[in-house]
Amino acid sequence: MLLGCGILSGLCLQAAGRPTVEQWGVFELTLSGPTNGNPFLEVKLSARFTQGTNVLEASGFYDGEGVYRVRFMPPVVGEWTYETRSNVRKLNGTAGHFTVTKPGPENHGPVGVANTYHFAYADGQPYHELGTTCYVWEWQPAALQAQTLKTLAASPFNKIRFCVFPKRYQWNTNEPILYPYASRDQCATTTNWDWGQFNVKYFQHLDQCVAALQQLGIEADLILFHPYDNGHWGFDRMPASADDRYVRYVVARLAAYRNLWWSLANEWDFMKQKRESDFVRFGEIIAHEDPYPHLLSIHNGSLLFNDTLPWITHASIQNGFAVEEPGRAELYRDVYRKPVVYDEVKYEGDIESRWGHLAADELVFRFWNATVAGTYCGHGETYRSADQILWWSKGGVLKGQSPARLAFLKKVMDDAPAEGIEPVDKWQSAGMGGQPAKYYLIYFGKQTPTNWVFELPKPPVAAVKSAEGLRFTAETLDTWNMTVTPVPGEFTLEKKDNYTFADKDGRSIPLPGKPYQAIRLKVISGPPGSRSPGLP
Amino acid sequence: MLLGCGILSGLCLQAAGRPTVEQWGVFELTLSGPTNGNPFLEVKLSARFTQGTNVLEASGFYDGEGVYRVRFMPPVVGEWTYETRSNVRKLNGTAGHFTVTKPGPENHGPVGVANTYHFAYADGQPYHELGTTCYVWEWQPAALQAQTLKTLAASPFNKIRFCVFPKRYQWNTNEPILYPYASRDQCATTTNWDWGQFNVKYFQHLDQCVAALQQLGIEADLILFHPYDNGHWGFDRMPASADDRYVRYVVARLAAYRNLWWSLANEWDFMKQKRESDFVRFGEIIAHEDPYPHLLSIHNGSLLFNDTLPWITHASIQNGFAVEEPGRAELYRDVYRKPVVYDEVKYEGDIESRWGHLAADELVFRFWNATVAGTYCGHGETYRSADQILWWSKGGVLKGQSPARLAFLKKVMDDAPAEGIEPVDKWQSAGMGGQPAKYYLIYFGKQTPTNWVFELPKPPVAAVKSAEGLRFTAETLDTWNMTVTPVPGEFTLEKKDNYTFADKDGRSIPLPGKPYQAIRLKVISGPPGSRSPGLP
Repeated sequence: MLLGCGILSGLCLQAAGRPTVEQWGVFELTLSGPTNGNPFLEVKLSARFTQGTNVLEASGFYDGEGVYRVRFMPPVVGEWTYETRSNVRKLNGTAGHFTVTKPGPENHGPVGVANTYHFAYADGQPYHELGTTCYVWEWQPAALQAQTLKTLAASPFNKIRFCVFPKRYQWNTNEPILYPYASRDQCATTTNWDWGQFNVKYFQHLDQCVAALQQLGIEADLILFHPYDNGHWGFDRMPASADDRYVRYVVARLAAYRNLWWSLANEWDFMKQKRESDFVRFGEIIAHEDPYPHLLSIHNGSLLFNDTLPWITHASIQNGFAVEEPGRAELYRDVYRKPVVYDEVKYEGDIESRWGHLAADELVFRFWNATVAGTYCGHGETYRSADQILWWSKGGVLKGQSPARLAFLKKVMDDAPAEGIEPVDKWQSAGMGGQPAKYYLIYFGKQTPTNWVFELPKPPVAAVKSAEGLRFTAETLDTWNMTVTPVPGEFTLEKKDNYTFADKDGRSIPLPGKPYQAIRLKVISGPPGSRSPGLP
Repeated sequence: MLLGCGILSGLCLQAAGRPTVEQWGVFELTLSGPTNGNPFLEVKLSARFTQGTNVLEASGFYDGEGVYRVRFMPPVVGEWTYETRSNVRKLNGTAGHFTVTKPGPENHGPVGVANTYHFAYADGQPYHELGTTCYVWEWQPAALQAQTLKTLAASPFNKIRFCVFPKRYQWNTNEPILYPYASRDQCATTTNWDWGQFNVKYFQHLDQCVAALQQLGIEADLILFHPYDNGHWGFDRMPASADDRYVRYVVARLAAYRNLWWSLANEWDFMKQKRESDFVRFGEIIAHEDPYPHLLSIHNGSLLFNDTLPWITHASIQNGFAVEEPGRAELYRDVYRKPVVYDEVKYEGDIESRWGHLAADELVFRFWNATVAGTYCGHGETYRSADQILWWSKGGVLKGQSPARLAFLKKVMDDAPAEGIEPVDKWQSAGMGGQPAKYYLIYFGKQTPTNWVFELPKPPVAAVKSAEGLRFTAETLDTWNMTVTPVPGEFTLEKKDNYTFADKDGRSIPLPGKPYQAIRLKVISGPPGSRSPGLP
């Protein structure tokens, strides 16, 4: 029996009359079904959604109190029909139709891989990943959650990594506000969980948090497993059947949210009760169950996962060492032929652990190294606090100096060519990113030059027939003080040798002799003498 | 009909009476068979070799003039039997036995992977890869070949990369002394080859060259395909059926040589007539056909192969950029979880191409970077020469200054722990290799310190219960001037902080303020006050 159609777009809204939902919004089918037995284990439910030749199958889920839901993210506009399938007669064969309208102005669809190493929304708009991490912000008291969302809204971050399961670790020994499973002992903190009984309130709250992030334009990089439990609750060591059921349940609930990314695990190799093959199985389940599919990755401790597996969409890497130098950062690109996101590169903060006391400038430096290497970087913050609230784990407020600089970097990324920033002259020189013959971003890091001789590697023929005579504007960027200073005049390329073009007048660009400087060059597409850069 | 048993050990020797061959030598079964039709296409021949529970199947090959051979490298001593199988009655069911004796003093068996990232001979002796490249030395005039072997004999190199097929490239436009196929036109330089007719003289010569290298204790890293033909002969663009037949033929001929390594291609991605899947197919053929199996890799141009594939034993990488810094060099290890051999890192020389004009010290620097990063590096030399003989392509004599320094490095490698040199404190600091709590090799590269404070990362518990009180001897190594200077006294570890141990007296080691210095530390295993290092 059909109870009603809910349309979620950030928050859940009821539509009156003929159901409509915008493209990449959430169409939610709500059905009434059995409450006897264990619906989580016994009831199978899915729906087939059809529009023309588009056919997608989405799994449904039990949401407690006799309520069953199937959520669907329509990928194209038009008239859609659906029909349910279930092993329960009451839920089987329910059919209907709905209209999918154009997306609203803030809705660009899910993020996917673009140009091999980069990301774009489904509508084609480039997505420049700039993520942060608050592992269990959503299981903190309501006021703290609200504060986290407020902080995020004012931040430059467009992705947040967080865990489904609660976390127990240093600075994070409080119990979560809810638990994901019903207890056999009626005792909230027991480890005697009933793996067959999801606590729907827990997952409803998770839904709301993902939706709240969507409202802010932030991608939810949801971590399915992590080791920071260590048997305290036992969610890190459930039986394999419970693991698989949990993965399917989360996919059924959340796959319809366009801002959802799957992260199979945080520090997968630190989960000593799991084997590598377990994570392969989880990945295969998601690859099979997720109808869209969303981005999917897995985050490492000290052992990299095999990110060449076909269902892994991008490499999510913890390795601060790799972004200490742009020449290191670019190496993983060629191995994986996928976007590389350095999701954990140590944290801005002042705790004792060596992963948690980077100076702000060091963290910003790592982001820039990653950027000019054609990769992406992740933020985190671990400032010691009397209230035990560290952003990295619980959210709250940002105290560091890096976010403002990362907002500046974000502007630079957004101003770059849509194809993305690539290493220029791969495996030959580090620190120069861009698109050959079009755009260059030269980062000097901790070097303190007073001058940069205008020389560029010969662009490949695929980029330009000949670089001879190409003209560029130049700007100097102080990446720490967040200034952009145009360099007077323009620069014209002339062949220097088989590998290099230089300014025809042998000009250089003066630099202030301070660290963290960059130069940005943009080709001038107008006639000689004009100053209009070739990029918007 | 059995013609005789030949035993190759470097050179082919006939055994009198009951055949004997040493372990990892070549047992060669020679049979007389049909000459009509096309034996290369029509005759199937293999033999099954049995000793106790050891059963290996080796393919045979046609060697011209009615002679068929099956070669076998016995992996264990004892009494072996064999029986042939063929679609030709005369060749089918030939049976016999032979005795496999202990290997001679210079015979350590084939090289395989050891300790994940390193190599060892089959008898357990560590193999410290120090390779060079002479792409087509064996197709040059006889005097030049002899000179190359003489040069190799006096060199530190224990591996050489070279191609089965001839090469046509700058400084290498001469025709080879032989061609691998019969021509349909009776014209040696034609491209109208008969892909069904191998020129057995060509492959007999190749056999001899591999055997000659074995006599010198040098591994033959044999490159099956390469792009430096560009259609001149067309060996880079044979039909797929010819490619596969060729791969099987080479495996049948050469797999019994213990010093054989397979390299599927040089710069595989520059072979524009082939697709990636072709090389996967070749790899799978070898993995199936090679009874032992030998080491197997593939070398890249600008696109890395997927070296995570299970039949690839080690990563053979062209990337000079990755060994400009030890922090870069170590990154591929974690991706592949296999030995990483930087087989091409640009060349010592003075030609115009940027890949061919490294200074000797720069090449030696790259080797050291690779070494302390737990990887291996490859040598090559491209000094311009009036006789057009550049070592890199044709062999001849070595003119550079790096080989002597690489011989010095080889001694250092041979003196290191048998487990191999690993990055110490992975992803935290670069330039320190070794085995925690046991042996450290600290390389300063182009830095010119005058002092090194004796501080080591806390060894993992797996290496030592506590590092407190561990005592070390120290030496300073000038890697360019090839000197080893003992540092007086000994150093005793004391905990400094959660991550570091330092000398209890806060001592430092003085350094000469010159580039290319290193420090070697060895644990003292004797009682306090003794000076005997813990390593042989």
